[in-house]
Amino acid sequence: MNLILLFEDDLVASDLKDSPADSFLVELKGRRLEHVKKVVRSKVGDELTVGLEGGNIGKGKVTHLDDECLRMRVVLDQEPPPPADIALVLALPRPNVLNRTLIAATSMGVKTFYLINTMRVEKSFWLSPKLSEGKIKDQLILGLEQAKDTVMPKVFFKKGFKPFVEDELPKLIEGTQAIVAHPYVDGESPDEIAKGTKTLVVGPEGGFIDYEIEKLKSIGFKPVSVGERILRVETIVPVLLSKLTS
Amino acid sequence: MNLILLFEDDLVASDLKDSPADSFLVELKGRRLEHVKKVVRSKVGDELTVGLEGGNIGKGKVTHLDDECLRMRVVLDQEPPPPADIALVLALPRPNVLNRTLIAATSMGVKTFYLINTMRVEKSFWLSPKLSEGKIKDQLILGLEQAKDTVMPKVFFKKGFKPFVEDELPKLIEGTQAIVAHPYVDGESPDEIAKGTKTLVVGPEGGFIDYEIEKLKSIGFKPVSVGERILRVETIVPVLLSKLTS
Repeated sequence: MNLILLFEDDLVASDLKDSPADSFLVELKGRRLEHVKKVVRSKVGDELTVGLEGGNIGKGKVTHLDDECLRMRVVLDQEPPPPADIALVLALPRPNVLNRTLIAATSMGVKTFYLINTMRVEKSFWLSPKLSEGKIKDQLILGLEQAKDTVMPKVFFKKGFKPFVEDELPKLIEGTQAIVAHPYVDGESPDEIAKGTKTLVVGPEGGFIDYEIEKLKSIGFKPVSVGERILRVETIVPVLLSKLTS
Repeated sequence: MNLILLFEDDLVASDLKDSPADSFLVELKGRRLEHVKKVVRSKVGDELTVGLEGGNIGKGKVTHLDDECLRMRVVLDQEPPPPADIALVLALPRPNVLNRTLIAATSMGVKTFYLINTMRVEKSFWLSPKLSEGKIKDQLILGLEQAKDTVMPKVFFKKGFKPFVEDELPKLIEGTQAIVAHPYVDGESPDEIAKGTKTLVVGPEGGFIDYEIEKLKSIGFKPVSVGERILRVETIVPVLLSKLTS
Protein backbone atom coordinates (compact mmCIF):
# COMPACT_ATOMS: atom_id res chain seq x y z
CA MET A 1 0.00 0.00 0.00
CA ASN A 2 1.94 3.00 -1.29
CA LEU A 3 -1.15 5.19 -1.05
CA ILE A 4 -4.25 4.95 1.10
CA LEU A 5 -7.25 5.16 -1.19
CA LEU A 6 -10.04 7.26 0.32
CA PHE A 7 -13.71 7.26 -0.63
CA GLU A 8 -16.37 9.97 -0.28
CA ASP A 9 -17.78 8.03 2.70
CA ASP A 10 -14.50 8.48 4.59
CA LEU A 11 -14.84 12.27 4.62
CA VAL A 12 -16.20 13.58 7.91
CA ALA A 13 -19.39 15.32 6.82
CA SER A 14 -19.59 17.79 9.71
CA ASP A 15 -16.23 19.18 8.68
CA LEU A 16 -16.91 19.67 4.98
CA LYS A 17 -18.62 23.08 5.01
CA ASP A 18 -15.83 24.75 6.98
CA SER A 19 -12.85 23.28 5.06
CA PRO A 20 -10.88 24.84 2.24
CA ALA A 21 -11.71 23.26 -1.14
CA ASP A 22 -8.84 20.74 -1.18
CA SER A 23 -8.55 19.97 2.53
CA PHE A 24 -10.69 17.35 4.24
CA LEU A 25 -10.99 15.62 7.58
CA VAL A 26 -10.99 11.86 7.06
CA GLU A 27 -11.87 9.00 9.43
CA LEU A 28 -10.72 5.43 8.73
CA LYS A 29 -11.52 2.04 10.28
CA GLY A 30 -10.94 -1.60 9.29
CA ARG A 31 -8.27 -2.69 6.83
CA ARG A 32 -6.74 0.74 6.29
CA LEU A 33 -6.62 1.50 10.03
CA GLU A 34 -4.92 -1.87 10.65
CA HIS A 35 -2.42 -1.21 7.87
CA VAL A 36 -1.46 2.20 9.24
CA LYS A 37 -1.08 0.81 12.75
CA LYS A 38 0.67 -2.49 12.04
CA VAL A 39 2.61 -2.03 8.80
CA VAL A 40 3.33 1.70 8.52
CA ARG A 41 3.37 2.03 12.34
CA SER A 42 2.33 5.67 12.13
CA LYS A 43 1.70 7.96 15.07
CA VAL A 44 -0.12 11.26 15.50
CA GLY A 45 1.62 13.95 13.48
CA ASP A 46 2.92 11.59 10.75
CA GLU A 47 2.10 12.24 7.11
CA LEU A 48 0.69 9.52 4.87
CA THR A 49 0.27 9.42 1.11
CA VAL A 50 -3.43 9.39 0.27
CA GLY A 51 -5.74 9.81 -2.71
CA LEU A 52 -9.48 10.28 -3.15
CA GLU A 53 -11.17 7.78 -5.47
CA GLY A 54 -11.49 9.41 -8.86
CA GLY A 55 -9.71 12.54 -7.63
CA ASN A 56 -6.39 13.96 -6.60
CA ILE A 57 -3.62 12.47 -4.50
CA GLY A 58 -1.85 14.23 -1.65
CA LYS A 59 -0.89 13.92 2.01
CA GLY A 60 -2.82 13.15 5.15
CA LYS A 61 -1.55 14.32 8.53
CA VAL A 62 -2.62 11.97 11.33
CA THR A 63 -4.55 13.92 13.99
CA HIS A 64 -5.95 11.00 16.01
CA LEU A 65 -5.11 7.30 16.19
CA ASP A 66 -6.45 4.61 18.51
CA ASP A 67 -7.75 1.03 18.21
CA GLU A 68 -11.10 2.29 16.90
CA CYS A 69 -10.22 4.80 14.25
CA LEU A 70 -7.68 6.97 12.53
CA ARG A 71 -8.40 10.59 11.75
CA MET A 72 -6.32 12.73 9.45
CA ARG A 73 -6.44 16.10 7.77
CA VAL A 74 -5.75 15.52 4.09
CA VAL A 75 -4.68 17.95 1.39
CA LEU A 76 -5.21 16.65 -2.14
CA ASP A 77 -3.21 18.78 -4.52
CA GLN A 78 -1.66 16.48 -7.12
CA GLU A 79 -3.14 14.66 -10.09
CA PRO A 80 -2.95 10.87 -10.17
CA PRO A 81 -0.62 9.31 -12.79
CA PRO A 82 -1.97 9.21 -16.34
CA PRO A 83 -3.83 6.02 -17.34
CA ALA A 84 -2.37 3.45 -19.72
CA ASP A 85 -3.80 3.87 -23.23
CA ILE A 86 -4.86 0.24 -23.50
CA ALA A 87 -7.99 -1.80 -22.82
CA LEU A 88 -7.47 -5.41 -21.75
CA VAL A 89 -9.73 -8.21 -22.94
CA LEU A 90 -8.92 -11.34 -20.99
CA ALA A 91 -10.19 -14.88 -21.35
CA LEU A 92 -11.39 -15.47 -17.78
CA PRO A 93 -8.47 -17.10 -15.93
CA ARG A 94 -8.51 -19.24 -12.78
CA PRO A 95 -9.84 -16.99 -9.96
CA ASN A 96 -6.51 -16.61 -8.12
CA VAL A 97 -4.77 -15.77 -11.37
CA LEU A 98 -7.55 -13.30 -12.18
CA ASN A 99 -6.96 -11.53 -8.87
CA ARG A 100 -3.22 -11.23 -9.40
CA THR A 101 -3.66 -10.16 -13.01
CA LEU A 102 -6.21 -7.49 -12.06
CA ILE A 103 -3.85 -6.12 -9.41
CA ALA A 104 -0.87 -6.10 -11.78
CA ALA A 105 -2.72 -4.55 -14.72
CA THR A 106 -4.44 -1.98 -12.51
CA SER A 107 -1.08 -1.00 -11.01
CA MET A 108 0.16 -0.52 -14.59
CA GLY A 109 -2.71 1.87 -15.36
CA VAL A 110 -5.27 -0.25 -17.22
CA LYS A 111 -8.73 1.33 -16.79
CA THR A 112 -10.93 -1.03 -18.82
CA PHE A 113 -11.16 -4.80 -18.51
CA TYR A 114 -13.38 -7.20 -20.42
CA LEU A 115 -13.46 -10.72 -19.00
CA ILE A 116 -14.68 -13.05 -21.71
CA ASN A 117 -15.57 -16.67 -22.19
CA THR A 118 -13.74 -18.87 -24.66
CA MET A 119 -13.79 -22.58 -25.41
CA ARG A 120 -10.85 -23.30 -23.09
CA VAL A 121 -12.08 -21.25 -20.12
CA GLU A 122 -13.14 -23.75 -17.47
CA LYS A 123 -16.88 -23.37 -16.83
CA SER A 124 -16.35 -23.53 -13.06
CA PHE A 125 -14.34 -20.27 -13.14
CA TRP A 126 -17.56 -18.38 -13.84
CA LEU A 127 -19.09 -19.67 -10.60
CA SER A 128 -16.32 -18.39 -8.32
CA PRO A 129 -17.35 -16.04 -5.49
CA LYS A 130 -14.19 -14.09 -6.43
CA LEU A 131 -16.14 -12.72 -9.40
CA SER A 132 -18.53 -10.75 -7.18
CA GLU A 133 -18.49 -6.99 -7.61
CA GLY A 134 -17.09 -6.50 -4.11
CA LYS A 135 -14.25 -9.01 -4.47
CA ILE A 136 -13.24 -7.61 -7.85
CA LYS A 137 -13.24 -4.10 -6.43
CA ASP A 138 -10.96 -5.26 -3.58
CA GLN A 139 -8.33 -6.29 -6.16
CA LEU A 140 -8.69 -3.05 -8.11
CA ILE A 141 -8.16 -1.08 -4.90
CA LEU A 142 -4.98 -3.07 -4.18
CA GLY A 143 -3.70 -2.22 -7.66
CA LEU A 144 -4.51 1.47 -7.29
CA GLU A 145 -2.91 1.64 -3.83
CA GLN A 146 0.20 -0.05 -5.21
CA ALA A 147 0.69 2.51 -7.99
CA LYS A 148 -0.57 5.63 -6.13
CA ASP A 149 -3.49 5.92 -8.50
CA THR A 150 -7.10 6.89 -7.73
CA VAL A 151 -9.09 6.19 -10.90
CA MET A 152 -11.08 2.98 -10.47
CA PRO A 153 -10.98 0.69 -13.53
CA LYS A 154 -14.19 -0.67 -15.04
CA VAL A 155 -14.58 -4.45 -15.34
CA PHE A 156 -17.12 -5.95 -17.74
CA PHE A 157 -18.10 -9.63 -17.94
CA LYS A 158 -18.93 -11.03 -21.37
CA LYS A 159 -20.00 -14.64 -21.22
CA GLY A 160 -20.86 -15.07 -24.89
CA PHE A 161 -17.77 -15.09 -27.10
CA LYS A 162 -19.57 -14.90 -30.44
CA PRO A 163 -22.03 -12.10 -29.63
CA PHE A 164 -19.27 -10.11 -27.91
CA VAL A 165 -16.85 -10.42 -30.83
CA GLU A 166 -19.50 -9.88 -33.50
CA ASP A 167 -21.68 -7.21 -31.93
CA GLU A 168 -19.61 -5.29 -29.37
CA LEU A 169 -15.90 -5.67 -30.03
CA PRO A 170 -15.91 -4.03 -33.49
CA LYS A 171 -17.18 -0.80 -31.90
CA LEU A 172 -14.83 -1.05 -28.92
CA ILE A 173 -11.74 -1.31 -31.11
CA GLU A 174 -12.66 1.65 -33.33
CA GLY A 175 -9.75 4.08 -33.29
CA THR A 176 -7.46 1.64 -31.46
CA GLN A 177 -4.89 -0.90 -32.60
CA ALA A 178 -6.46 -4.29 -32.00
CA ILE A 179 -3.92 -6.88 -30.89
CA VAL A 180 -4.31 -10.50 -29.88
CA ALA A 181 -1.61 -12.39 -28.00
CA HIS A 182 -1.68 -16.07 -27.69
CA PRO A 183 1.07 -18.62 -27.54
CA TYR A 184 0.29 -20.80 -30.53
CA VAL A 185 0.14 -18.21 -33.29
CA ASP A 186 3.03 -16.70 -35.21
CA GLY A 187 2.76 -12.99 -34.84
CA GLU A 188 4.66 -9.77 -34.97
CA SER A 189 6.91 -8.84 -32.08
CA PRO A 190 5.15 -6.37 -29.76
CA ASP A 191 8.24 -4.17 -30.18
CA GLU A 192 7.17 -3.56 -33.80
CA ILE A 193 3.75 -2.16 -32.88
CA ALA A 194 3.46 1.62 -33.15
CA LYS A 195 2.48 3.86 -30.25
CA GLY A 196 -1.14 4.83 -29.67
CA THR A 197 -4.35 3.58 -28.10
CA LYS A 198 -4.72 -0.18 -28.10
CA THR A 199 -7.07 -3.03 -27.36
CA LEU A 200 -5.21 -6.14 -26.23
CA VAL A 201 -6.82 -9.57 -26.14
CA VAL A 202 -5.08 -12.30 -24.11
CA GLY A 203 -6.25 -15.89 -24.43
CA PRO A 204 -6.71 -18.62 -21.83
CA GLU A 205 -3.90 -20.85 -20.50
CA GLY A 206 -4.66 -23.49 -23.12
CA GLY A 207 -4.80 -20.92 -25.92
CA PHE A 208 -7.62 -19.88 -28.19
CA ILE A 209 -9.07 -22.45 -30.54
CA ASP A 210 -8.58 -21.75 -34.27
CA TYR A 211 -12.17 -20.56 -34.69
CA GLU A 212 -11.68 -17.90 -32.01
CA ILE A 213 -8.41 -16.62 -33.46
CA GLU A 214 -9.92 -16.49 -36.95
CA LYS A 215 -12.94 -14.65 -35.63
CA LEU A 216 -10.71 -12.04 -33.97
CA LYS A 217 -8.60 -11.69 -37.09
CA SER A 218 -11.74 -11.25 -39.18
CA ILE A 219 -12.66 -8.09 -37.30
CA GLY A 220 -9.15 -6.67 -37.56
CA PHE A 221 -7.07 -8.13 -34.72
CA LYS A 222 -3.36 -8.54 -35.40
CA PRO A 223 -1.53 -11.39 -33.64
CA VAL A 224 1.58 -10.67 -31.59
CA SER A 225 3.99 -13.20 -30.18
CA VAL A 226 6.78 -12.85 -27.64
CA GLY A 227 8.81 -15.85 -28.72
CA GLU A 228 8.82 -19.57 -28.22
CA ARG A 229 8.50 -19.55 -24.43
CA ILE A 230 4.87 -19.88 -23.35
CA LEU A 231 4.15 -17.64 -20.36
CA ARG A 232 1.41 -17.73 -17.75
CA VAL A 233 -1.40 -15.19 -18.05
CA GLU A 234 -0.16 -13.35 -14.94
CA THR A 235 3.30 -13.08 -16.55
CA ILE A 236 2.40 -12.27 -20.14
CA VAL A 237 0.02 -9.47 -19.14
CA PRO A 238 2.68 -7.27 -17.44
CA VAL A 239 5.14 -8.12 -20.23
CA LEU A 240 2.76 -7.07 -22.99
CA LEU A 241 1.44 -4.02 -21.13
CA SER A 242 4.98 -2.74 -20.66
CA LYS A 243 5.82 -3.36 -24.32
CA LEU A 244 2.60 -1.93 -25.76
CA THR A 245 2.11 1.20 -23.64
CA SER A 246 4.18 4.33 -23.74
CA MET B 1 2.32 -27.76 -17.73
CA ASN B 2 3.23 -27.36 -21.40
CA LEU B 3 5.99 -29.95 -21.08
CA ILE B 4 6.47 -32.84 -18.68
CA LEU B 5 9.93 -32.51 -17.17
CA LEU B 6 11.64 -35.87 -16.82
CA PHE B 7 14.57 -36.78 -14.57
CA GLU B 8 17.20 -39.50 -14.91
CA ASP B 9 15.34 -41.48 -12.22
CA ASP B 10 12.27 -41.68 -14.45
CA LEU B 11 14.13 -43.67 -17.10
CA VAL B 12 13.46 -47.39 -16.87
CA ALA B 13 16.94 -48.81 -16.28
CA SER B 14 16.28 -52.28 -17.72
CA ASP B 15 15.44 -50.68 -21.06
CA LEU B 16 18.45 -48.39 -21.39
CA LYS B 17 21.00 -50.78 -22.90
CA ASP B 18 18.71 -51.86 -25.73
CA SER B 19 17.41 -48.40 -26.74
CA PRO B 20 18.65 -46.11 -29.49
CA ALA B 21 20.65 -43.17 -28.11
CA ASP B 22 17.78 -40.66 -28.00
CA SER B 23 14.87 -42.98 -27.22
CA PHE B 24 13.99 -43.98 -23.67
CA LEU B 25 11.28 -45.83 -21.80
CA VAL B 26 9.95 -43.64 -18.99
CA GLU B 27 7.74 -44.44 -16.01
CA LEU B 28 5.90 -41.70 -14.08
CA LYS B 29 3.92 -41.62 -10.82
CA GLY B 30 2.59 -38.90 -8.53
CA ARG B 31 1.99 -35.31 -9.69
CA ARG B 32 2.87 -35.88 -13.33
CA LEU B 33 0.75 -39.02 -13.59
CA GLU B 34 -2.20 -37.15 -12.04
CA HIS B 35 -1.72 -34.25 -14.45
CA VAL B 36 -1.69 -36.49 -17.51
CA LYS B 37 -4.79 -38.35 -16.32
CA LYS B 38 -6.89 -35.47 -15.01
CA VAL B 39 -5.83 -32.37 -16.95
CA VAL B 40 -4.46 -33.62 -20.26
CA ARG B 41 -6.78 -36.65 -20.13
CA SER B 42 -4.40 -38.70 -22.26
CA LYS B 43 -4.87 -42.29 -23.28
CA VAL B 44 -2.56 -45.01 -24.57
CA GLY B 45 -1.16 -43.98 -27.95
CA ASP B 46 -1.30 -40.22 -27.28
CA GLU B 47 1.84 -38.12 -27.65
CA LEU B 48 2.96 -35.73 -24.91
CA THR B 49 5.60 -32.99 -24.98
CA VAL B 50 8.45 -33.97 -22.68
CA GLY B 51 11.99 -32.89 -21.84
CA LEU B 52 14.85 -34.43 -19.86
CA GLU B 53 16.27 -32.21 -17.12
CA GLY B 54 19.37 -30.56 -18.52
CA GLY B 55 18.84 -32.20 -21.91
CA ASN B 56 16.70 -32.20 -25.00
CA ILE B 57 12.96 -31.88 -25.40
CA GLY B 58 10.80 -34.11 -27.58
CA LYS B 59 7.72 -36.33 -27.58
CA GLY B 60 6.59 -39.21 -25.41
CA LYS B 61 4.13 -41.80 -26.75
CA VAL B 62 1.99 -43.26 -23.98
CA THR B 63 2.37 -47.08 -23.93
CA HIS B 64 0.67 -47.83 -20.61
CA LEU B 65 -1.61 -45.84 -18.30
CA ASP B 66 -3.42 -46.90 -15.14
CA ASP B 67 -3.99 -45.55 -11.62
CA GLU B 68 -0.49 -46.59 -10.57
CA CYS B 69 1.77 -45.39 -13.33
CA LEU B 70 2.23 -44.01 -16.80
CA ARG B 71 4.77 -45.47 -19.18
CA MET B 72 5.86 -43.81 -22.38
CA ARG B 73 8.50 -44.19 -25.04
CA VAL B 74 10.16 -40.82 -25.45
CA VAL B 75 12.29 -39.45 -28.26
CA LEU B 76 14.29 -36.37 -27.32
CA ASP B 77 15.49 -34.69 -30.48
CA GLN B 78 15.15 -30.92 -29.99
CA GLU B 79 17.19 -28.46 -28.00
CA PRO B 80 15.45 -26.49 -25.23
CA PRO B 81 14.95 -22.74 -25.81
CA PRO B 82 18.03 -20.57 -25.26
CA PRO B 83 18.46 -19.10 -21.76
CA ALA B 84 17.92 -15.41 -20.99
CA ASP B 85 21.24 -13.57 -20.80
CA ILE B 86 20.50 -12.09 -17.39
CA ALA B 87 21.16 -13.01 -13.77
CA LEU B 88 18.57 -11.88 -11.23
CA VAL B 89 19.54 -10.63 -7.77
CA LEU B 90 16.39 -10.26 -5.70
CA ALA B 91 15.88 -8.85 -2.22
CA LEU B 92 14.10 -11.81 -0.61
CA PRO B 93 10.36 -11.17 -1.03
CA ARG B 94 7.44 -12.55 0.97
CA PRO B 95 7.46 -16.36 0.42
CA ASN B 96 4.34 -16.49 -1.79
CA VAL B 97 5.69 -13.65 -3.90
CA LEU B 98 9.05 -15.43 -4.11
CA ASN B 99 7.34 -18.53 -5.47
CA ARG B 100 5.44 -16.64 -8.14
CA THR B 101 8.49 -14.60 -9.07
CA LEU B 102 10.67 -17.71 -9.37
CA ILE B 103 8.08 -19.36 -11.63
CA ALA B 104 7.72 -16.25 -13.81
CA ALA B 105 11.46 -15.57 -14.13
CA THR B 106 12.24 -19.23 -14.75
CA SER B 107 9.60 -19.36 -17.47
CA MET B 108 11.31 -16.33 -19.03
CA GLY B 109 14.66 -18.15 -19.10
CA VAL B 110 16.55 -16.84 -16.06
CA LYS B 111 19.15 -19.43 -14.99
CA THR B 112 20.81 -17.72 -12.03
CA PHE B 113 19.10 -16.25 -8.97
CA TYR B 114 20.67 -14.63 -5.93
CA LEU B 115 18.26 -14.06 -3.04
CA ILE B 116 19.75 -11.42 -0.79
CA ASN B 117 19.04 -9.72 2.49
CA THR B 118 18.50 -5.97 2.72
CA MET B 119 17.38 -3.65 5.51
CA ARG B 120 13.72 -3.78 4.43
CA VAL B 121 13.50 -7.56 3.99
CA GLU B 122 11.39 -8.87 6.87
CA LYS B 123 13.51 -11.17 9.02
CA SER B 124 10.70 -13.74 9.21
CA PHE B 125 10.90 -14.35 5.44
CA TRP B 126 14.23 -16.13 5.96
CA LEU B 127 12.56 -18.66 8.27
CA SER B 128 9.90 -19.78 5.80
CA PRO B 129 9.77 -23.51 4.98
CA LYS B 130 9.23 -22.35 1.39
CA LEU B 131 12.95 -21.61 1.23
CA SER B 132 13.90 -25.29 1.51
CA GLU B 133 15.81 -26.72 -1.43
CA GLY B 134 12.92 -29.02 -2.31
CA LYS B 135 10.24 -26.31 -2.25
CA ILE B 136 12.37 -23.96 -4.33
CA LYS B 137 12.99 -26.71 -6.85
CA ASP B 138 9.23 -27.33 -7.11
CA GLN B 139 8.78 -23.72 -8.29
CA LEU B 140 11.66 -23.93 -10.75
CA ILE B 141 10.14 -27.09 -12.23
CA LEU B 142 6.79 -25.30 -12.67
CA GLY B 143 8.59 -22.49 -14.49
CA LEU B 144 10.48 -24.89 -16.77
CA GLU B 145 7.33 -26.91 -17.55
CA GLN B 146 5.50 -23.67 -18.38
CA ALA B 147 8.10 -22.57 -20.95
CA LYS B 148 9.07 -26.02 -22.32
CA ASP B 149 12.55 -25.64 -20.94
CA THR B 150 14.77 -28.27 -19.29
CA VAL B 151 17.75 -26.40 -17.83
CA MET B 152 17.32 -26.06 -14.06
CA PRO B 153 18.22 -22.59 -12.72
CA LYS B 154 20.61 -22.20 -9.80
CA VAL B 155 19.38 -20.35 -6.71
CA PHE B 156 21.87 -18.91 -4.20
CA PHE B 157 21.00 -17.43 -0.80
CA LYS B 158 23.10 -14.51 0.43
CA LYS B 159 22.10 -13.36 3.87
CA GLY B 160 24.82 -10.76 4.34
CA PHE B 161 24.25 -7.70 2.15
CA LYS B 162 27.60 -6.03 2.76
CA PRO B 163 29.89 -9.06 2.29
CA PHE B 164 27.91 -10.13 -0.79
CA VAL B 165 28.09 -6.69 -2.42
CA GLU B 166 31.73 -6.09 -1.45
CA ASP B 167 33.26 -9.51 -1.92
CA GLU B 168 31.15 -11.46 -4.40
CA LEU B 169 29.06 -9.16 -6.57
CA PRO B 170 31.99 -7.31 -8.20
CA LYS B 171 33.21 -10.62 -9.66
CA LEU B 172 29.71 -11.74 -10.65
CA ILE B 173 29.02 -8.59 -12.67
CA GLU B 174 32.32 -8.70 -14.58
CA GLY B 175 31.53 -8.61 -18.29
CA THR B 176 27.85 -7.84 -17.67
CA GLN B 177 25.84 -4.64 -17.52
CA ALA B 178 24.95 -4.15 -13.86
CA ILE B 179 21.50 -2.65 -13.38
CA VAL B 180 19.52 -1.86 -10.26
CA ALA B 181 15.79 -1.22 -10.34
CA HIS B 182 14.00 0.27 -7.45
CA PRO B 183 11.04 2.58 -7.24
CA TYR B 184 12.50 5.56 -5.42
CA VAL B 185 15.50 6.35 -7.61
CA ASP B 186 15.54 8.35 -10.81
CA GLY B 187 17.12 6.20 -13.43
CA GLU B 188 17.41 5.58 -17.12
CA SER B 189 14.54 3.94 -18.93
CA PRO B 190 15.27 0.22 -19.43
CA ASP B 191 14.54 0.84 -23.12
CA GLU B 192 17.80 2.83 -23.31
CA ILE B 193 19.98 -0.04 -22.10
CA ALA B 194 22.01 -1.76 -24.82
CA LYS B 195 21.74 -5.47 -25.59
CA GLY B 196 24.12 -7.95 -23.95
CA THR B 197 24.58 -9.96 -20.78
CA LYS B 198 23.17 -8.32 -17.67
CA THR B 199 22.94 -8.56 -13.91
CA LEU B 200 19.68 -7.12 -12.61
CA VAL B 201 19.13 -6.26 -8.95
CA VAL B 202 15.54 -5.74 -7.76
CA GLY B 203 14.90 -4.30 -4.30
CA PRO B 204 12.34 -5.19 -1.65
CA GLU B 205 8.74 -3.90 -1.60
CA GLY B 206 9.74 -0.98 0.61
CA GLY B 207 12.74 -0.12 -1.56
CA PHE B 208 16.44 -0.12 -0.80
CA ILE B 209 17.75 2.26 1.82
CA ASP B 210 20.12 4.96 0.56
CA TYR B 211 23.19 3.15 1.88
CA GLU B 212 22.31 0.07 -0.16
CA ILE B 213 21.73 1.99 -3.38
CA GLU B 214 24.97 3.92 -2.91
CA LYS B 215 26.84 0.68 -2.24
CA LEU B 216 25.51 -0.84 -5.46
CA LYS B 217 26.32 2.30 -7.44
CA SER B 218 29.85 2.31 -5.99
CA ILE B 219 30.61 -1.05 -7.61
CA GLY B 220 29.16 0.02 -10.96
CA PHE B 221 25.40 -0.52 -10.84
CA LYS B 222 23.31 1.81 -12.97
CA PRO B 223 19.77 2.65 -11.77
CA VAL B 224 16.80 2.09 -14.08
CA SER B 225 13.29 3.27 -13.53
CA VAL B 226 10.04 2.39 -15.29
CA GLY B 227 8.14 5.55 -14.42
CA GLU B 228 6.18 6.95 -11.54
CA ARG B 229 3.97 3.90 -10.93
CA ILE B 230 5.44 1.64 -8.25
CA LEU B 231 4.96 -2.01 -9.16
CA ARG B 232 4.98 -5.16 -7.05
CA VAL B 233 8.07 -7.38 -7.24
CA GLU B 234 6.11 -10.07 -9.07
CA THR B 235 5.06 -7.46 -11.69
CA ILE B 236 8.29 -5.50 -12.12
CA VAL B 237 10.37 -8.65 -12.62
CA PRO B 238 8.57 -9.82 -15.79
CA VAL B 239 8.42 -6.22 -17.03
CA LEU B 240 12.17 -5.67 -16.62
CA LEU B 241 13.13 -9.11 -17.90
CA SER B 242 11.16 -8.51 -21.07
CA LYS B 243 12.69 -5.08 -21.54
CA LEU B 244 16.27 -6.08 -20.75
CA THR B 245 16.60 -9.40 -22.57
CA SER B 246 16.73 -9.90 -26.30
